Parts: sequence; C-alpha cells; structure tokens
Amino acid sequence: MSVSSIPIPSKFNKLQVSEWFKGLQNDICKALEHCDGKGIFEEEIWQRSGGGGGRTMVMKDGSVIEKGGVGFSEIYGSMPTRIAESFRVERDNEFFATGVSVIIHPSSPMIPIIHMNVRYFETSCGKRWFGGGIDLTPIYIDINQAKDFHKALKKICDKHHPAYYSQFKERTDDYFFIKHRNETRGIGGIFFDKLSETEDISMAALFEFVKDVGSAFIPIYTGLIEENRNEPYGEKEKAWQKLRRGRYVEFNLIYDNGTKFGLDTGGRIESILMSLPPEVNWAYNYKPGPGTREEMTQQYLKKGIDWLNL
Amino acid sequence: MSVSSIPIPSKFNKLQVSEWFKGLQNDICKALEHCDGKGIFEEEIWQRSGGGGGRTMVMKDGSVIEKGGVGFSEIYGSMPTRIAESFRVERDNEFFATGVSVIIHPSSPMIPIIHMNVRYFETSCGKRWFGGGIDLTPIYIDINQAKDFHKALKKICDKHHPAYYSQFKERTDDYFFIKHRNETRGIGGIFFDKLSETEDISMAALFEFVKDVGSAFIPIYTGLIEENRNEPYGEKEKAWQKLRRGRYVEFNLIYDNGTKFGLDTGGRIESILMSLPPEVNWAYNYKPGPGTREEMTQQYLKKGIDWLNL
Repeated sequence: MSVSSIPIPSKFNKLQVSEWFKGLQNDICKALEHCDGKGIFEEEIWQRSGGGGGRTMVMKDGSVIEKGGVGFSEIYGSMPTRIAESFRVERDNEFFATGVSVIIHPSSPMIPIIHMNVRYFETSCGKRWFGGGIDLTPIYIDINQAKDFHKALKKICDKHHPAYYSQFKERTDDYFFIKHRNETRGIGGIFFDKLSETEDISMAALFEFVKDVGSAFIPIYTGLIEENRNEPYGEKEKAWQKLRRGRYVEFNLIYDNGTKFGLDTGGRIESILMSLPPEVNWAYNYKPGPGTREEMTQQYLKKGIDWLNL
Repeated sequence: MSVSSIPIPSKFNKLQVSEWFKGLQNDICKALEHCDGKGIFEEEIWQRSGGGGGRTMVMKDGSVIEKGGVGFSEIYGSMPTRIAESFRVERDNEFFATGVSVIIHPSSPMIPIIHMNVRYFETSCGKRWFGGGIDLTPIYIDINQAKDFHKALKKICDKHHPAYYSQFKERTDDYFFIKHRNETRGIGGIFFDKLSETEDISMAALFEFVKDVGSAFIPIYTGLIEENRNEPYGEKEKAWQKLRRGRYVEFNLIYDNGTKFGLDTGGRIESILMSLPPEVNWAYNYKPGPGTREEMTQQYLKKGIDWLNL
C-alpha cells in the first residue's frame, strides 16, 4: 500500500504529524550537538520491508553525552498480527505509525538520563491516537531540579487540559516501575497513550499538545545539562551511576513495552536497543550507607511522590 | 508442612539429593577459592517464608573470578499457582525443590563464562524429576577448547544413556539462544529438564547421572582457568568482553526461564540476579572487523555446530 490509501481527515493530517516529528528530530539533534560542543550525531537510514522506515541519529563520546539516540520512524502497511493484538484492533487493517524517541545517557553522573517519546498511530478503519511523554532518571536526585522538571511538565499539560498532569504523572509512576526492585526507574514525568479525540478535544488540538511536549525537550534538557555539567564527581559517583544504569537496563529489557514489541516484531535491533546505557555494572547486594546521597536518591524512587509540593 | 510429609520412595530419597547438592556447593566453592588463590566466597543464608531456604555464596574481585555465585536452595511447602502452572501439575499439591547453580564471570576475557545447574523437583502426588546442565560462554572461541568441553560432556552422557548427549546438546542450542540477535549465548553444552524415571532408567540411576554432571564442573572449569589464565590481553579484549557480557544480560533478562520465574514469584532478587555480569557495555551498532578473532567468535555463535567433529 501507499501512505495515501489511508483517508485523511479534514484539518488534521497524519503526514503533517510525521513532517513535524521529522523536524523535531532535527531540532533536537542540533540543539544537543550545540550544547555538547564536541559530539556529533551520526545518521543511519533504515527501511522496513513491509513499508516505511526511519532515521536513527546516534552520538557517542561527546563532551557531555556519552551515548545518545534520537530516532525518527514512519512506518505503514498491512498490520502484523502482533500489532493488531497489541492495539486490540481488527487484524486485516492497514496502519500508519510515526514517532520520535530520545534517550540520552550523559557521562557525568550529575546529569540525569532523559527519555522522551512522541508518537502517532492510525488504522485504515479510522482509529487514531497519540502517545508519548518525558521522564527523567537522575543518578542523584536533586529535589529542586525534580520540582522544576515537574513544574515545567505541569505547565504544558495545564495549557491543554486540567486533568492531564495528574493523570499522566500517575501513569508514568505506574509504568516506569521496576517491580522486582520495588522502585521507580527515576522521578517520573508524564506519559500518555491512546490519546484520542473526544467531545472536549479534537485531534488537531491533541496534536498541539503533543507538539508542546516534544518542543519542551530541548529547553528542559539543555537546562539540566547547563545546571549540572560543572558539578564535580569522582569514582564513587561513577560507580553509583553504573549501578543505576543497571536498573535502567533491567527496566528496558524486562518491562518496557516498546522494547518487547520491537524485539517480538523483528524490528531493527540496534535502533531498539540504542536505549541501553554504556558502561553498566551489577554488584551483588549493594546497599548505600545510611545518610549518603545514594541512600537519599533510593528513598525517592517511589510511586506517588508529589514533587510539586515537596 | 514439613519436609517429611512427602512420601519417600525406596532406594531414592529427596533428602539424599539435597544433601549431595549441599556438599557439591561446598566442594565447588573450595575448589574455586583454591584455583583463584585470592578471592573468598562470602556466605549469605536466606529463608523462604513458605518453607525452606538456601545459601548463596558470592565471590567478588578474586584474582581470576571478577564475580562468581554458587547458590544452593532447598525449598518446599504448598505449591504457589505460578509453580503449578509452570510445571503443569495440580494446584493444591505440596512441592519440594532443591538445586545448585553456578555462574562465574572471570575478569580475563581469555577465560570463558561458565554456568552450571543441577536441580530436583517433586510433588506430593508423586511427580518427580531432575533438571540441569552445563554451558560455556567464551568471549573468544577456541575451537580446541570447545571440542574438549563437548567431549567431556559427551563422555558423561554416554556413560548413562546413548541418546543423552545429542538430545541435551540440541536442547542447549535451542534454549540458550538470543532470538533477537539470531545468535547462541555461547558454545552451548548440555541441558535437560523433567528427566523422570522410565522403564529404561530409575530415579536412582538418574541421580547418578546428575551427580556426574555436577561433579564435572570442577575439573572442567579449573582446567579452563589453568589453560587460559596466563593468556595476555589488553583494552581491545576487555572492550569485546563487555559487549559479550551485554548479550549475556540480554539473554538472562529477556529469555531465561529461571530468572523470569524467580522475578515473577518474588524470589530473593540478589540471588536471582547474581548471574548478571559486572562491567558491561552496550555500544551502538558494533561490528567486528573482517578476519578478527571477534568476528570468528561471532561466526561460531550458531545452533547445531558439531563441535566434536569440527
């Protein structure tokens, strides 16, 4: 099939979405390169045999970014069973999906790991929705920065719907949860899925919300980089970072739906696993000492923390 | 329940099994400490609230062993749903399970990672079986050593049943397979599960086979350590080791039934994840250069290689 065989609704167009996403990928890569000052994103173009493809941008060994990936994809075609099952839609439809996803692993343990994703999905029988969000995984939790991060997200949400922030914040706590460790992956953020038009809000309006989420990435993360890039650290902090990265791996390989889905459906392995951090360690039975910053961080890896009013 | 409420068959006794396994754990720890020359196993005793418990022995930063775990467990009680489902037995039975499992991550990339496991399971309604095996994950595959390893395993198998080696070798290739990478975890070995008495072979005879498998660990692995401990290596080999360890993590977190089962049933996290290697790395899109030892190793990470006749 071609992209154009899916009906285009008035005032809102899937190709507008994928074009905007493509631009977002570019903007993010440029902003991160500028902020890093040394690292350059390398481009890898890939095609999907069933239809569509994408562009994966990866930076290695920058001055700030040890490993970072910014992926764009736009795929379409007849719907694989696995996709139909996962989205609970009829099997014989065609689908169109586009998205941008970002994961940055900075070399300094004083700069948080960040993850952002915006995505759009539609089927030829007329179902369509947005998904996405931003979440932050500090190696050391700084309460003020956590507060600012959540404040920025709340501001974006409130602009579009009064219920969004609390709803999407709760969802993030639930989703980015490492069940076997009984801890959250980080300090959460906002995440939403299957966001569809209602009487309240049109697809075009939802697209504006998703644009605001995507656009927030650059000021939020370059701000966090600037605030923390000159913070000193030593071997102790690097060791803690390696352990925290281990938890990140555990989450992504055991619980993350996107990773599972990608691996199950035979996606491009290197693009799916570009989210995995460099230089990771698993130590047996590590317990941070009482009163340390490591222990304090661990205490805040919980669901339901009201960051705004801490 | 007490251990003694499960009927004891004549000539074969589950407590003989767990006693022997306990002794095997001791022997392996002693032999590895002796071979390492510096590292000491630290003991952690744990109890299971539903019945039984175990002893986890962990070595860190030895002269040869960077991280090694030798676990013994003997657990029993009323059968959790998850165990009943997994073993397809009636839900309201009581069970008894005992096992030893070993994973050694040596610091030198010239010494293979090894994994060995022997286990016994029985239910109060009379089902009972053995499981276990040994498999090897060299960072650099040495054909002669791979051949010797498989020869040693075939010799043990042949002593007990002419079909065992080829059957269990194939099973290992299938099980220790990283589907999304289309590669095996290492050079395989032997693995068996639900090995029960038949007209051919009694439980007592199967126990002898399992003893031979467990006892083979020490000569096989100390032999591999001695053969390789003085092999020189540098940063390039350490970097490759970190990537190969990443594949090990991918297998254990995504595919390994024991890990999944442990995490799902709320086992002791540190004991379950002691199998994970230290100092791991994920590099984006790494491809070994043509003609390198790394490429040669990758070429042998395939199912169905007839190591004995290479």
